[in-house]
Amino acid sequence: MANEKFATTLGIFGNQSDRWCNAGYKQDKTVDELFEAAKEVGLLDGIELFGTWHINEKNIDKIKSLTEKYNFGVSTLIVDLFVNPVFGNGSIASMDEKVRKMAVEEIKKYMDIAVRLNCDLLDIWPGQDGYDYPFQVDYTKAWELMFDSIGQCADHNKDVRLAMEYKIREPRNRIYIATIGKALAFLEKLDRKNVGITVDVGHGFFAYENVAETIALCKFYGDKLFHMHFNDNYGFADDDLIVGATHLQDYLEVIYWLKKTGYSGWYSLDQFPYRDDGIGACRESIKMLKVLIDAVDSMDPEEIERVISKGSAADSIDLIRRMIFKK
Amino acid sequence: MANEKFATTLGIFGNQSDRWCNAGYKQDKTVDELFEAAKEVGLLDGIELFGTWHINEKNIDKIKSLTEKYNFGVSTLIVDLFVNPVFGNGSIASMDEKVRKMAVEEIKKYMDIAVRLNCDLLDIWPGQDGYDYPFQVDYTKAWELMFDSIGQCADHNKDVRLAMEYKIREPRNRIYIATIGKALAFLEKLDRKNVGITVDVGHGFFAYENVAETIALCKFYGDKLFHMHFNDNYGFADDDLIVGATHLQDYLEVIYWLKKTGYSGWYSLDQFPYRDDGIGACRESIKMLKVLIDAVDSMDPEEIERVISKGSAADSIDLIRRMIFKK
Amino acid sequence: MANEKFATTLGIFGNQSDRWCNAGYKQDKTVDELFEAAKEVGLLDGIELFGTWHINEKNIDKIKSLTEKYNFGVSTLIVDLFVNPVFGNGSIASMDEKVRKMAVEEIKKYMDIAVRLNCDLLDIWPGQDGYDYPFQVDYTKAWELMFDSIGQCADHNKDVRLAMEYKIREPRNRIYIATIGKALAFLEKLDRKNVGITVDVGHGFFAYENVAETIALCKFYGDKLFHMHFNDNYGFADDDLIVGATHLQDYLEVIYWLKKTGYSGWYSLDQFPYRDDGIGACRESIKMLKVLIDAVDSMDPEEIERVISKGSAADSIDLIRRMIFKK
Amino acid sequence: MANEKFATTLGIFGNQSDRWCNAGYKQDKTVDELFEAAKEVGLLDGIELFGTWHINEKNIDKIKSLTEKYNFGVSTLIVDLFVNPVFGNGSIASMDEKVRKMAVEEIKKYMDIAVRLNCDLLDIWPGQDGYDYPFQVDYTKAWELMFDSIGQCADHNKDVRLAMEYKIREPRNRIYIATIGKALAFLEKLDRKNVGITVDVGHGFFAYENVAETIALCKFYGDKLFHMHFNDNYGFADDDLIVGATHLQDYLEVIYWLKKTGYSGWYSLDQFPYRDDGIGACRESIKMLKVLIDAVDSMDPEEIERVISKGSAADSIDLIRRMIFKK
Repeated sequence: MANEKFATTLGIFGNQSDRWCNAGYKQDKTVDELFEAAKEVGLLDGIELFGTWHINEKNIDKIKSLTEKYNFGVSTLIVDLFVNPVFGNGSIASMDEKVRKMAVEEIKKYMDIAVRLNCDLLDIWPGQDGYDYPFQVDYTKAWELMFDSIGQCADHNKDVRLAMEYKIREPRNRIYIATIGKALAFLEKLDRKNVGITVDVGHGFFAYENVAETIALCKFYGDKLFHMHFNDNYGFADDDLIVGATHLQDYLEVIYWLKKTGYSGWYSLDQFPYRDDGIGACRESIKMLKVLIDAVDSMDPEEIERVISKGSAADSIDLIRRMIFKK
Repeated sequence: MANEKFATTLGIFGNQSDRWCNAGYKQDKTVDELFEAAKEVGLLDGIELFGTWHINEKNIDKIKSLTEKYNFGVSTLIVDLFVNPVFGNGSIASMDEKVRKMAVEEIKKYMDIAVRLNCDLLDIWPGQDGYDYPFQVDYTKAWELMFDSIGQCADHNKDVRLAMEYKIREPRNRIYIATIGKALAFLEKLDRKNVGITVDVGHGFFAYENVAETIALCKFYGDKLFHMHFNDNYGFADDDLIVGATHLQDYLEVIYWLKKTGYSGWYSLDQFPYRDDGIGACRESIKMLKVLIDAVDSMDPEEIERVISKGSAADSIDLIRRMIFKK
Repeated sequence: MANEKFATTLGIFGNQSDRWCNAGYKQDKTVDELFEAAKEVGLLDGIELFGTWHINEKNIDKIKSLTEKYNFGVSTLIVDLFVNPVFGNGSIASMDEKVRKMAVEEIKKYMDIAVRLNCDLLDIWPGQDGYDYPFQVDYTKAWELMFDSIGQCADHNKDVRLAMEYKIREPRNRIYIATIGKALAFLEKLDRKNVGITVDVGHGFFAYENVAETIALCKFYGDKLFHMHFNDNYGFADDDLIVGATHLQDYLEVIYWLKKTGYSGWYSLDQFPYRDDGIGACRESIKMLKVLIDAVDSMDPEEIERVISKGSAADSIDLIRRMIFKK
Repeated sequence: MANEKFATTLGIFGNQSDRWCNAGYKQDKTVDELFEAAKEVGLLDGIELFGTWHINEKNIDKIKSLTEKYNFGVSTLIVDLFVNPVFGNGSIASMDEKVRKMAVEEIKKYMDIAVRLNCDLLDIWPGQDGYDYPFQVDYTKAWELMFDSIGQCADHNKDVRLAMEYKIREPRNRIYIATIGKALAFLEKLDRKNVGITVDVGHGFFAYENVAETIALCKFYGDKLFHMHFNDNYGFADDDLIVGATHLQDYLEVIYWLKKTGYSGWYSLDQFPYRDDGIGACRESIKMLKVLIDAVDSMDPEEIERVISKGSAADSIDLIRRMIFKK
């Protein structure tokens, strides 16, 4: 069963800053150094690249040769709709037509780049598309614009899949595509086969979602789970911690439902180890995922289904204890 | 412009209990006394009845004559899917077929009762339809059952509208139809004209929704806003406080978008004044709503739209201050 | 090392209601039946009694003989300052002098009852002492009154210890003694040796506390940890779930710090299994606590301290994984 | 009554970055430009300077002449314990003795600088002093170190007051001095007259505090309120928005209790208008504070006290409505 493919955003190995420590807690690294660090982890099958930060029009060949050198797949490209300050007030839903067109062009450009990197998946995270204050936005218009923008991108190349990554807030105080519910409602109305969802487990946690149910719903609404991001948090913000910092039972159920629904995509990390060594942070997350996968695999699926079908609190906790502690 | 019709759930005037103070903080009241209290408020156009607690098969005529005596419209009936312990583990999504059928029959029965009370709107709040633990539920099956149950009810009488009331938790730790996003995704797939949404403003607040955006989305997805519940909370639970306890700016924007989207339904209260006088709690909420409506009405809508179109934080706050403080 | 004494509030075996399902999800039980159920669990060393619900002036002898019959210690008595509606607007901080005196007398009475039951510990949970709205309370006066009330009680019998149980909200929207910080600040100023703290792990979780740090602080401020309540929740409310529903890593660290600080009191459950079998809910919590205790005991304490002294995220997660999964 | 002195952190006028948009959403400004911007607001009596960013050993004279040129008081200096990555794993509680000494020296240095700027108040915000993972810290040791560090600083010059600014999280996932309760417990044990508290209203909001009660407690524990920071947020994070974005009723009560307890310090802003014009963001906050102050001043204090003494929800809301809407 152990066919999971592990990846990570490359940024985990670099320098991370926040609004206070602007220059970052560590030292900047070159892309070559980031790839070397990824290799050093020893557990990765692929890497995920942020536009602007890691991949751009000029270094495609270099990136291609690095992935070949280290034998990494490219799990997905994350289009930059949030680092470039031109998108500070919105990208695909910007009220400024020029900016919105730039965002659409940026996505199309990265669809083309993805093809060149043998990757058929783009992560679209419109984190700047939202608002901060009451009476700051015409919501109807903003949603209309998002449908239009993503529709255009989807039609640009139907063989490249676009995975919408929802998040309830940060960097904007409120983001339009905030929850799994809004993501599904968006897709239902958009009606494009090559547009689906990235479930960032942490985004689910701090939106008070049960991510296992989220995965079930993605399946139920038509195989819409295109990509998974793993990390952990304390339920209030996108802390982007090492997997296993706070959630375990939820992670077990997530893994169970990924298997049950036949998810065949990447198990990719998206973390911000500001003060910590990126290689260790990456390695520990994958090691935790592996023991969790083993814990799920060690149980007879029929027994799990039998417990679930009972709906009994005590039986569910008993199952969880036995899965984890073997006693 | 002042054509708003105000209503309240009748329970506001009665006795409220919680898990500690089981017998309630006050004295129980008869239905006659509840109606008298509603009249005493002096500001109500209608009332809203909970199934079991206030309305049932046996007292329909009595209720009808009381509404006539006091000249109250019936804003909506709330089917009891949560007081009767038979629904403790679920109603419309119960894994127990017998229980699920009871829930469907209960809804159909109240659709018929509504007709007899000249009311065409039922509030469906499946608050017990959810779960408390990981590995306790087959989510796919649960969602399938909800579609089936509500589909059946919708087809029972297409002239009665069903308003699904979403809530993220309580009494279950997790409720299926949790957020505006999930409610819209549910409706998109259900595809029944007579099924829409009740937006309980407080449910939105503690799910970290901007309720003004929620209202805009209900319109955008096809005039799906059937009913409004008003109350207030501190953002963490369904406190069901008097309107104006904590939110004002959000309420202003909610009222603005209700008008902008042409909402013509009831402005109905759903509060739990455990320790407080129900008449006062009701009256203060309506008085607060009225000054908020006045504040919105006092501004030139074109000016409001002009500010919104700017997307400027400072201008938005300036607008809010002028609306509220007139300086 | 396995000297932990396990107890539970007796209410876990009874009927639980909430504000919707007023009559409760299950059947009421007599005190005899509750004791029988406690025995059936097979893992309990003691029980904890709520005033009014389980213990009162009239049934002391009966309760005493039941504890002897079943060989249960009495871990603590919880004075009723929250079920009786007379305390609905406050007990020890009530602005009504008569009510406040009743609360003080109630506490003193239960101090005397405790002595008769060979119990030297009272749990004081002033859950109604708080407020719901702005401009509803003179905070200075309320705090003064609490110092006065608890001071009087403490002086009534210095051999009975009073454990203040803090909670951030529910049933009041805001409770005065809300957090571990406020509890410690209260004790510092009160300056009575026989007044300490009950740490309800769940109350800590949903106040965004790290309960391990809370336990360390209780020690640091002078051996103030008198009692522990165990249960679990999703971080937003006092869900009172079975231990292990959502938190594991935090529980591991809590147990480690209980041992490190030499806590010798009860490991007592405080849960509300509304829809679930109380015996099963109790048994599963203790079984989970036992495997967690084993996990901690299985590690060399020096190794744990070595990891802690490093302050490294990766090493901490590595430790947690090895403690739990043994690999 | 209108004797409030308004100030702001100078950073409001500069460029703000976050973890995504590292280079900032706007353009960097020189200190001269920041002062000019402050003057342009037209409503400021003073400014507040961040160490490193705005004030350091080398530009004291320049800053002094700028404050004289523009006739600004210096409300406080905020020592840099969070921008310099050397403090990334802690400052006053760092387990690295060298780093901890640097932090203490930094504070002492800024105490000396403050004197030279005719300022007697230092804001101490130990935002890096906390942790991110379970089993990452020895809490007892960390708290001991904080007492030692702050004790040393307090004794360095008893005429300079140190205001401890508490915050529940960010940048660390958990910060030691997290809440008003912990801040008060810290001060009780520290026992230094020249150490008090900065209440950042937003930090209170997102720790689920009622800030009015917080202010009352600062008074009750011995005039411990040294400084106030104003801003606003949505209750989940330190959004640092313009005052009035979300809270109004709470702000009214805060202002009332500042007056009632005789607070005579600064009304100082601490905001991050990432995408917005700093001058507008500052001006709107002060204008909002002024109308709120007017609203409080417009009521007879005896009437306010009369309402508070009733403890009635309806009367409290009625008071709030009349204060704000004059009807």
